[in-house]
Amino acid sequence: MIEISPEVDDLIDLALSEDRVFNDATTRALLTDNDIGVGVIRAKSSGIIAGVNIALAVFRRLDGFVELSQSIHDGDTLSPGAEIARIYGKVSTILRGERTALNFLQRMSGIATATNEYVEAVKDFPAQIVDTRKTVPGLRYLDKYAVRAGGGKNHRMDLSDGVLIKDNHIELLRHRGVGLLQALESAMGEAPHTLKVEVEINNLEQLAEVLKSGAHIVMLDNMSIENMVKAVGIVDGRAVLEASGGITIENVRDVAATGVDLISIGALTHSVTAMDISLDLET
Amino acid sequence: MIEISPEVDDLIDLALSEDRVFNDATTRALLTDNDIGVGVIRAKSSGIIAGVNIALAVFRRLDGFVELSQSIHDGDTLSPGAEIARIYGKVSTILRGERTALNFLQRMSGIATATNEYVEAVKDFPAQIVDTRKTVPGLRYLDKYAVRAGGGKNHRMDLSDGVLIKDNHIELLRHRGVGLLQALESAMGEAPHTLKVEVEINNLEQLAEVLKSGAHIVMLDNMSIENMVKAVGIVDGRAVLEASGGITIENVRDVAATGVDLISIGALTHSVTAMDISLDLET
Amino acid sequence: MIEISPEVDDLIDLALSEDRVFNDATTRALLTDNDIGVGVIRAKSSGIIAGVNIALAVFRRLDGFVELSQSIHDGDTLSPGAEIARIYGKVSTILRGERTALNFLQRMSGIATATNEYVEAVKDFPAQIVDTRKTVPGLRYLDKYAVRAGGGKNHRMDLSDGVLIKDNHIELLRHRGVGLLQALESAMGEAPHTLKVEVEINNLEQLAEVLKSGAHIVMLDNMSIENMVKAVGIVDGRAVLEASGGITIENVRDVAATGVDLISIGALTHSVTAMDISLDLET
Amino acid sequence: MIEISPEVDDLIDLALSEDRVFNDATTRALLTDNDIGVGVIRAKSSGIIAGVNIALAVFRRLDGFVELSQSIHDGDTLSPGAEIARIYGKVSTILRGERTALNFLQRMSGIATATNEYVEAVKDFPAQIVDTRKTVPGLRYLDKYAVRAGGGKNHRMDLSDGVLIKDNHIELLRHRGVGLLQALESAMGEAPHTLKVEVEINNLEQLAEVLKSGAHIVMLDNMSIENMVKAVGIVDGRAVLEASGGITIENVRDVAATGVDLISIGALTHSVTAMDISLDLET
Amino acid sequence: MIEISPEVDDLIDLALSEDRVFNDATTRALLTDNDIGVGVIRAKSSGIIAGVNIALAVFRRLDGFVELSQSIHDGDTLSPGAEIARIYGKVSTILRGERTALNFLQRMSGIATATNEYVEAVKDFPAQIVDTRKTVPGLRYLDKYAVRAGGGKNHRMDLSDGVLIKDNHIELLRHRGVGLLQALESAMGEAPHTLKVEVEINNLEQLAEVLKSGAHIVMLDNMSIENMVKAVGIVDGRAVLEASGGITIENVRDVAATGVDLISIGALTHSVTAMDISLDLET
Amino acid sequence: MIEISPEVDDLIDLALSEDRVFNDATTRALLTDNDIGVGVIRAKSSGIIAGVNIALAVFRRLDGFVELSQSIHDGDTLSPGAEIARIYGKVSTILRGERTALNFLQRMSGIATATNEYVEAVKDFPAQIVDTRKTVPGLRYLDKYAVRAGGGKNHRMDLSDGVLIKDNHIELLRHRGVGLLQALESAMGEAPHTLKVEVEINNLEQLAEVLKSGAHIVMLDNMSIENMVKAVGIVDGRAVLEASGGITIENVRDVAATGVDLISIGALTHSVTAMDISLDLET
Repeated sequence: MIEISPEVDDLIDLALSEDRVFNDATTRALLTDNDIGVGVIRAKSSGIIAGVNIALAVFRRLDGFVELSQSIHDGDTLSPGAEIARIYGKVSTILRGERTALNFLQRMSGIATATNEYVEAVKDFPAQIVDTRKTVPGLRYLDKYAVRAGGGKNHRMDLSDGVLIKDNHIELLRHRGVGLLQALESAMGEAPHTLKVEVEINNLEQLAEVLKSGAHIVMLDNMSIENMVKAVGIVDGRAVLEASGGITIENVRDVAATGVDLISIGALTHSVTAMDISLDLET
Repeated sequence: MIEISPEVDDLIDLALSEDRVFNDATTRALLTDNDIGVGVIRAKSSGIIAGVNIALAVFRRLDGFVELSQSIHDGDTLSPGAEIARIYGKVSTILRGERTALNFLQRMSGIATATNEYVEAVKDFPAQIVDTRKTVPGLRYLDKYAVRAGGGKNHRMDLSDGVLIKDNHIELLRHRGVGLLQALESAMGEAPHTLKVEVEINNLEQLAEVLKSGAHIVMLDNMSIENMVKAVGIVDGRAVLEASGGITIENVRDVAATGVDLISIGALTHSVTAMDISLDLET
Repeated sequence: MIEISPEVDDLIDLALSEDRVFNDATTRALLTDNDIGVGVIRAKSSGIIAGVNIALAVFRRLDGFVELSQSIHDGDTLSPGAEIARIYGKVSTILRGERTALNFLQRMSGIATATNEYVEAVKDFPAQIVDTRKTVPGLRYLDKYAVRAGGGKNHRMDLSDGVLIKDNHIELLRHRGVGLLQALESAMGEAPHTLKVEVEINNLEQLAEVLKSGAHIVMLDNMSIENMVKAVGIVDGRAVLEASGGITIENVRDVAATGVDLISIGALTHSVTAMDISLDLET
Repeated sequence: MIEISPEVDDLIDLALSEDRVFNDATTRALLTDNDIGVGVIRAKSSGIIAGVNIALAVFRRLDGFVELSQSIHDGDTLSPGAEIARIYGKVSTILRGERTALNFLQRMSGIATATNEYVEAVKDFPAQIVDTRKTVPGLRYLDKYAVRAGGGKNHRMDLSDGVLIKDNHIELLRHRGVGLLQALESAMGEAPHTLKVEVEINNLEQLAEVLKSGAHIVMLDNMSIENMVKAVGIVDGRAVLEASGGITIENVRDVAATGVDLISIGALTHSVTAMDISLDLET
Repeated sequence: MIEISPEVDDLIDLALSEDRVFNDATTRALLTDNDIGVGVIRAKSSGIIAGVNIALAVFRRLDGFVELSQSIHDGDTLSPGAEIARIYGKVSTILRGERTALNFLQRMSGIATATNEYVEAVKDFPAQIVDTRKTVPGLRYLDKYAVRAGGGKNHRMDLSDGVLIKDNHIELLRHRGVGLLQALESAMGEAPHTLKVEVEINNLEQLAEVLKSGAHIVMLDNMSIENMVKAVGIVDGRAVLEASGGITIENVRDVAATGVDLISIGALTHSVTAMDISLDLET
Repeated sequence: MIEISPEVDDLIDLALSEDRVFNDATTRALLTDNDIGVGVIRAKSSGIIAGVNIALAVFRRLDGFVELSQSIHDGDTLSPGAEIARIYGKVSTILRGERTALNFLQRMSGIATATNEYVEAVKDFPAQIVDTRKTVPGLRYLDKYAVRAGGGKNHRMDLSDGVLIKDNHIELLRHRGVGLLQALESAMGEAPHTLKVEVEINNLEQLAEVLKSGAHIVMLDNMSIENMVKAVGIVDGRAVLEASGGITIENVRDVAATGVDLISIGALTHSVTAMDISLDLET
């Protein structure tokens, strides 16, 4: 289960505030505090659930007297109709929190579900599915957690926990008159000693210099399957290889078959299809 | 252009903070403050742009001496390769802000683009495409703006600016022994006088009572095309009709052809495909 | 009872912080943690109580071990001497929170009390007393709640939950060459479909065009009793009528007698007389 | 002019946020960004102006391109019709900020005006008018500034900048078996050395012991004019004397005539009558 | 025990956030939620403990199910090996909070320990050891509390709770043509009536005028022992005397022997030596 | 120069708020807005300056019209009397910001100065001086920057950017029946692929297994000089070696002479001696 950090607490408050749950015109017009009920959260499509803890925290935040029961765990595969959680309490509390709780849960479960499809597609190969920093502003921690819940592995959480030298960096240094090998050797010396250094390349010519520099990880950007196979052969275990760019559920198995170690997919978090999940009231 | 409210400023800070842009291990290892350059943001696929203002605000937040030029406006249709904006300044500033700025811009443009496809699909009919409250937590204001940039119209921004009586409410009141008409009449009296009252129905039997109550808007939830046509006939202009549930780009034209006034689509904001946009460094 | 939203929690923290309750020079010089007592909150004048929940939340925030008992509810009419609540715990906690808790409670009860005087004055007529957006910065939610506790009804909570076209808007449009009817028809089309449209007029000449536009609510601004009577006759139920401007406890009954539906009074929240309430220590 | 501290910036943001100025349904329906105009803030009643700086900061926060001109200063006495400030810019900006800016300005000017009435009433005597901590939660800094703008003097800003021993404290200590003199001597020793010690008494019997303790200020709580005169005689300059409780504009001159040094009045900030100030659009 | 004010809660959250305890790569790689244990906090050097409450609050913040036992209190003198507290719960929780909790506890105990050395050094004289405003940004409340825990007394908490006229002020006024006595008399009149006035002097010539003005406290800045003795004689109880500047553990006893009332030492908080405290895991 | 991130802006606001600079009793009593002057910040002892940018940001925050000139840069070695910066503006602004600005500057310069002493002491050897996570809560980013300004290198910024397996982790795993090699191999597999893995050992017996696991960095905790020499020989370049524990300015050169790569010193940030820096007013 994801841990409810202070930042997550703040995010829940932000979400409740932007939905003005404490000024809900509908429940105020229709209900009283004596209307007590049970809300049941259920899957309406199949998928991997993620974020139950946050959905429940939303309801807890609304009313101290809500009781919560919880039947499943993040990472579980659900069938349509599967019960996810129950919320006991004032009907107004349940209905006010419904949309906010589901907005968290549906996105996170959508990410977990899509990640898992990729993970399943490559299960015959050692390659791991990893995410990117292409997440929704403010939800990095949640989006990355959902990838793990779906069986994926996280790439850098942010700019501080890995050195990743991209084409823009290399171009700039070339412009300064610094060759690739020289730039990489300098970077290896300047980088924080606790971090590995990854270099993005888009052709095989760059590979020899990258290996010579001792870089730990090589990102093969938008490379053909054919070239990836060659890269795996050339590297021969001297660096971790990451395939990146243009990878879809259709071609991911072919990419994994090349022998790369990591396959990174931006769409896991930048183009999410929400899982269908609903809340029904039982009285 | 979207206005940069205090909440948007906070969201930009949150996004920069979660990406640790001020502790970027890569630019710190490779670059100096003397590396000056230009970053060019360009579309890589066709689509409707939205959120340029926020992308630029990200770079402004990072460094007071960055100059910004801006060539297009939100709502414009872009072709692949179209230039969106230029950022002048320290290369480290440009590269640190790149991912955060694009994360905002790609999501918002993705929403605008998808909205516009629906709008175009129904352009021969009076129906308007509207969004829902199924937005990403914390991004309600941005997601809704992007829908407008794409030519859509906003439904309720939050629980306070419209009364929407759903099946869960009606069920609860029935359980209390309150019939539909009685419930609606009570709601019409209790609701804030500045708000209209909308009622969700899922069969035509409920329609007569809803009309009798004087409710202003009727949501036809997951109704067949056939029944929508009947509903339009029965209502005959006495209420606004909103079609909702299970509407896709494939069937939206048929829905519009029934004569409903509004078509609401949750996927506009809960299942976004990011527009492909990139930043290239020019030195 | 008012719900303690995240924003109310923040407001309580802000109030405690600005009073520096955790650096109280007096209790630190005089008391020890072994000084235990009971604080009793009592009305010292008659009035309608509102905000008890917030007063108690102030004490809860100061010390987890304080026990609270509570004898009455918001909206109750109190006589001088009536007991409102008791706080058990460290004397230092009780005395530190006293001023902050009373500042909330006295203002909110003052608003409820004044509102109720207006409500009582018009009780023989169908007119409802409504508030305005003339509230103290940061206290909108509390001020509006207190109006409801006193028997009033809320007007717009903010700029998003109602369309209100005022003289400034109309003047501007006229300056652009747009006539009243045309402006209103355009506004009716552009306004969010979940909101009603209200128009402010200050003479009867404007009334016909407003009615023709289909506007839902008409605000009669600073109009004479005589003209209000005429307006009620002309409108004849085709729109809601709101009297506004220059209304006092002396003339409100006459205004109500004209047959208007709503009477809005800025002084309810912009010129509050605090209710007299005190906290006494019992040891 | 009041200084715009970080806390004031936060308060302005809070006020704009609670009024949802960035989601104003009316200006969005009626206006475009091309509608440019001038807003003129004018007094509609006579009074002392206070808070112009904050009103202007509200408009600056909304739009960077607004130009501001300013003709008068806090503490000035205004006649009805006097122009206070002008705001140039988009009409939507002017109308969205209007209510928030006026809410600050009307309250602060109301406080300054009332304070000044008291100050004028006692001008023939050395007594100074002082405020209390009975301010609106979150507005302590603004309320106290407005008192100064009206010619009053501030009492304690908060619990940390003065020791004030009240009846509740004295009762508690008596209950512990500690006599008044002993309690005061202990307090004089324990109190921060940079703060003076004030003691509240409600009869003349307590006065001798208070003087013996060396307390710096004596608060005469709800004492008769006759007793105040006696107290002034007894004290004879050995302590500062503050009259408190039940003081109104009717009796304040009599209180001042007793020779007390300070007259504190809670109503200055707990029961404010807003000054009448409006914003008119000129196009 | 220090009270956990809202500001302290925020500081704990800030500290946990900057240490990214919810993204701890090590515990995530090694541990599961089933690893349960006990963390024992122990002194590793002798000293005065301060801040136990905050250390415990750090662990409480991380996990609701952690049980805490606590064996000693702030201000106690500890020997190496002395047990301070125990934390029960998930090992990951204990290890994640360890550094943050100890960072608070070691600094605060370091301040208390150093303060106590000064207090002990002057125990044969009436002089009190006081702190300054030279604290770490954001930790004023904690640093000042730790001084009290070590037996010291606080000087001004901030710029609002004491008037302190320094050489910079006096120079400026002289430049304006205002002599020292005139400046002080004006300051005595303008200062808040609840605050005492302190004046910094660096030679005995200034002393007569300061006394004449009636200033309550005189700061002898960087004065020789010889001159301090003279100052004590001249003042003869008419003002409080504070020695300041260049005072070390070596010379503090000599300073106290001069008869001054207060000895202020910036190093208590600006140059802290952390107390050695560790957390060991028991399983 | 350090970049002023949103978090640093917040920290400056927090520091100004806790010092109540907008309620400064002294400048309010003595000065007017017409008192204009220049504040000059100067070193009073020798040392390495760090944090000038933040000191200046403090004054900028207080008043938009302050002009700043700046003569030196972070990392420069200063002699007593060296001018660091000048602040032009209202004297009240200069005096109010003085303490806050110096509190930042003196701590950061103290850290840089101490770090530089260690760096100089080992300059004949390849070993680098690194910091720890033993920083003051809330100042991690500033403390670590100051270490770099002094010529040191940063160790982990937080728990997310390096895997560091300590004795507590190893003990726990042993208790679970997991041997050191097995634990390390598992950790190497589970750790984020962008991070290196460091292992703390306290005897040479553990070294062989650590090397076999492929761990990237080995921390020699509290080891004798003799054993460090042996460890360097055994490792022979197969891992980075970090000496840690009990290292002082007296023994650091001997430690460096052993051939270790990194020497980490907690006292750099947990036991800081503030550099002596002052602000003088020139008028």
